[in-house]
Amino acid sequence: MHYNSITPELSSKIERVVGKDNVYTSNEDLEKYSHDETEDFSFLPELVVKPASADEVATILKICTEHKIPVTPSGARTGLSGGALPLFGGVNLSLERMNKIIEIDERNLQATVEPGVINQVFHEACKEKGLFYPPDPSSWGSCFLGGNLALNAGGPKAVKYGVTNAYVLNLEVALPTGEIIWTGANVLKNSTGFNLTQLMVGSEGTLGVITKAVFRLIPYPKQNLLMLVPFASAEKACEAVSAIFRAGITPSGMEFMERDAIDWTLKYVEDVQLLIGEEVQAHLLIEVDGDHEEVLFKDCEKITEIVADFDAGEVLFADNQNDKDALWKLRRRVGEAVKSNSVYKEEDTVVPRAELPKLLKGVKEIGAKYGFKSVCYGHAGDGNLHVNIVKADMSDDAWENELPKGIREIFELVKSLGGTISGEHGIGYVQKDYLDVVFSDKVLDLQRSIKQAFDPAGIMNPGKVFN
Amino acid sequence: MHYNSITPELSSKIERVVGKDNVYTSNEDLEKYSHDETEDFSFLPELVVKPASADEVATILKICTEHKIPVTPSGARTGLSGGALPLFGGVNLSLERMNKIIEIDERNLQATVEPGVINQVFHEACKEKGLFYPPDPSSWGSCFLGGNLALNAGGPKAVKYGVTNAYVLNLEVALPTGEIIWTGANVLKNSTGFNLTQLMVGSEGTLGVITKAVFRLIPYPKQNLLMLVPFASAEKACEAVSAIFRAGITPSGMEFMERDAIDWTLKYVEDVQLLIGEEVQAHLLIEVDGDHEEVLFKDCEKITEIVADFDAGEVLFADNQNDKDALWKLRRRVGEAVKSNSVYKEEDTVVPRAELPKLLKGVKEIGAKYGFKSVCYGHAGDGNLHVNIVKADMSDDAWENELPKGIREIFELVKSLGGTISGEHGIGYVQKDYLDVVFSDKVLDLQRSIKQAFDPAGIMNPGKVFN
Repeated sequence: MHYNSITPELSSKIERVVGKDNVYTSNEDLEKYSHDETEDFSFLPELVVKPASADEVATILKICTEHKIPVTPSGARTGLSGGALPLFGGVNLSLERMNKIIEIDERNLQATVEPGVINQVFHEACKEKGLFYPPDPSSWGSCFLGGNLALNAGGPKAVKYGVTNAYVLNLEVALPTGEIIWTGANVLKNSTGFNLTQLMVGSEGTLGVITKAVFRLIPYPKQNLLMLVPFASAEKACEAVSAIFRAGITPSGMEFMERDAIDWTLKYVEDVQLLIGEEVQAHLLIEVDGDHEEVLFKDCEKITEIVADFDAGEVLFADNQNDKDALWKLRRRVGEAVKSNSVYKEEDTVVPRAELPKLLKGVKEIGAKYGFKSVCYGHAGDGNLHVNIVKADMSDDAWENELPKGIREIFELVKSLGGTISGEHGIGYVQKDYLDVVFSDKVLDLQRSIKQAFDPAGIMNPGKVFN
Repeated sequence: MHYNSITPELSSKIERVVGKDNVYTSNEDLEKYSHDETEDFSFLPELVVKPASADEVATILKICTEHKIPVTPSGARTGLSGGALPLFGGVNLSLERMNKIIEIDERNLQATVEPGVINQVFHEACKEKGLFYPPDPSSWGSCFLGGNLALNAGGPKAVKYGVTNAYVLNLEVALPTGEIIWTGANVLKNSTGFNLTQLMVGSEGTLGVITKAVFRLIPYPKQNLLMLVPFASAEKACEAVSAIFRAGITPSGMEFMERDAIDWTLKYVEDVQLLIGEEVQAHLLIEVDGDHEEVLFKDCEKITEIVADFDAGEVLFADNQNDKDALWKLRRRVGEAVKSNSVYKEEDTVVPRAELPKLLKGVKEIGAKYGFKSVCYGHAGDGNLHVNIVKADMSDDAWENELPKGIREIFELVKSLGGTISGEHGIGYVQKDYLDVVFSDKVLDLQRSIKQAFDPAGIMNPGKVFN
């Protein structure tokens, strides 16, 4: 694909759309917008543009289509698959100024937001009104709702409440051809035409730019209980996960952490202390929530009985908010802690929940074969295991040339277990070479045809998802 | 669009794919497959073909693409929007022989089924294993899961548990071009490429034929309580709906029935008796479910308090299974009862829940303006109101020429309230002329481009959804 560079004339044209103050060209600014949280990648955009409205976004996209300028939409740039990397230069279209919560509609339990609203800010605003927006990725303190939509982000609560796509009712989208559309309606059920709403969710900025979203909300659960369960065997911990669901309990959090994950995080997050027995190989962090404390205590009792069958150690109950916050902080910081330790690659594998033990065992075997170490953790209740491959003392040659074969082998294992290669991080830049593991040529062709229908000039986030 | 007729040679070719015994050509058979449950429409197919496998389906579709023969996929033909009407003759592809529950996977709480499995049969098979498949359209005793997927069907439980699309994980699809694809993976969260699974759901047989589906299941709730609440004002009943949700209660059923709906049904369903006070104008049928009876009783108490604020009459509790079955029978049979009374048209309006009173009021005003009577009922908790327009003593001229203007006005009202023109019945044949009320030209163009990518020869269910 050939793209044009941004000429001074074009730059002026864009300035006239968003105002001179909202176009950035200094080296410092370009550098800042050259990366997200994915490994150590950096690709400089030619311009950073910060529109304030759907109209401005649409106008810029139309100009870029006419002049064949690549556009990389970006949010908080917390992504882990390189979706916000401006691979081909061009415009980095930052949605950060479009950060209004337009309405929280308490009559209908719905909210309308702009894409630049921070997930946690939205969560708290809903909570103040007794309403609950469950999706809460680890980066919720900084990530944007627009990015969450682009990647169909999850988080710990997804196990009971579903991921982002379970809460989206309707999207306003600026198309690369300059039109602004609404994909659906503000309703809980909809059988009217093809589901363009769900097509946009998870499309990683390759089809258009989401400029408004309507979410459904639910009543905020009044109570929750949290426990940390140690296991002498990581595989046994994974087996316990499936058993808890089969007993009819649906926890609101069911997180898995390998020994290394928790050790490294304890070192990284200095204000949390936890004594862990030598024999412990993994933990489950289990939360239950609801409106009736007595029911939650019964659930916890039952969970305690079940984990005992899988050789769990002594269960730690967090019985006050401080302890709860400390345990969640540990879990939310694992990614950063691993990252601070070594160059790494994060794989976002997902399988049917009961296949987790096989996945974990397979990952370790493949690691042994190719000579890499992995630190595993993630949303075990959803079968979503983050495999952090750390470079440690691997040679650059092995890292560059052998590791991709190992990753492919992990993904082939995932596929054979009924799973797929990304549960919540997206394909973006770093996983696109592996898409053939899970999709046939025909499926890829169909996806490319859809892309072509939305984005005939191929300007939207080029080099992502597809090769 | 020009289609070819089926020649004797082509018919033989198709017979060689599925076996002579599975191709039907008698007048009686063609007549039987000429209609679904939509008004009194009838369009004869040229052949009825009953394949037994995805391979057979794909082969037939490929032949039909090559020879430009229209294909109308059909399930149990219980649809209410004319989706299974063979408008252009050709092949009626009946999925009724593909009726196996392939697996109920208790380890992963998932099931794999063929499209011809009856909804209730699947529901009961899951229930036997303690598992719950919630979507349950009124026709659940006969409708097929494949049809439910094609229309994104709902039902009374949707208010708490969501509609069909909330349970689909992965689909096997035979494409008109002859390939067989899987759209996704058997996982609870997925950020891998465009969501073709959700694109297929609700596509009404216009993109391909679903030949297998993987559903997620949840634990079967152990208890439920059911109550029937009479109101002296239909609008007050609708107002109460929103108030109950705002109080933090999510019922597992929240059905609305106008006085006429229940009167007509009581006449139609002779074995259910119910004494209704003269002042009663509407009922809400409210179910709560869960694992803890004491919690459900508390919910019912709270609901009773709330409805009192909306001038509810005396609440009837169904305190045994027989009474519960009787009340649900009444609700499930309303559609048939209205149909038995008069020629009618059923509109499947859906709005944000709190806008129901405005919708109901508007429907009656529009009816008065155009001279039609309507009987309204439906899934009030979802904002999904079925507006049954009965011909009664309207002239044929008014029915043919004036009524469509009235329907358009209802849909314009629905749109202005944030809603759309089908919540669970689909667009099919009868609503396609109104699609412009809710979609811009650009949205329709995008949908047509997607159709073109999947079905370049335009053989899949032609004349449905789009004009």
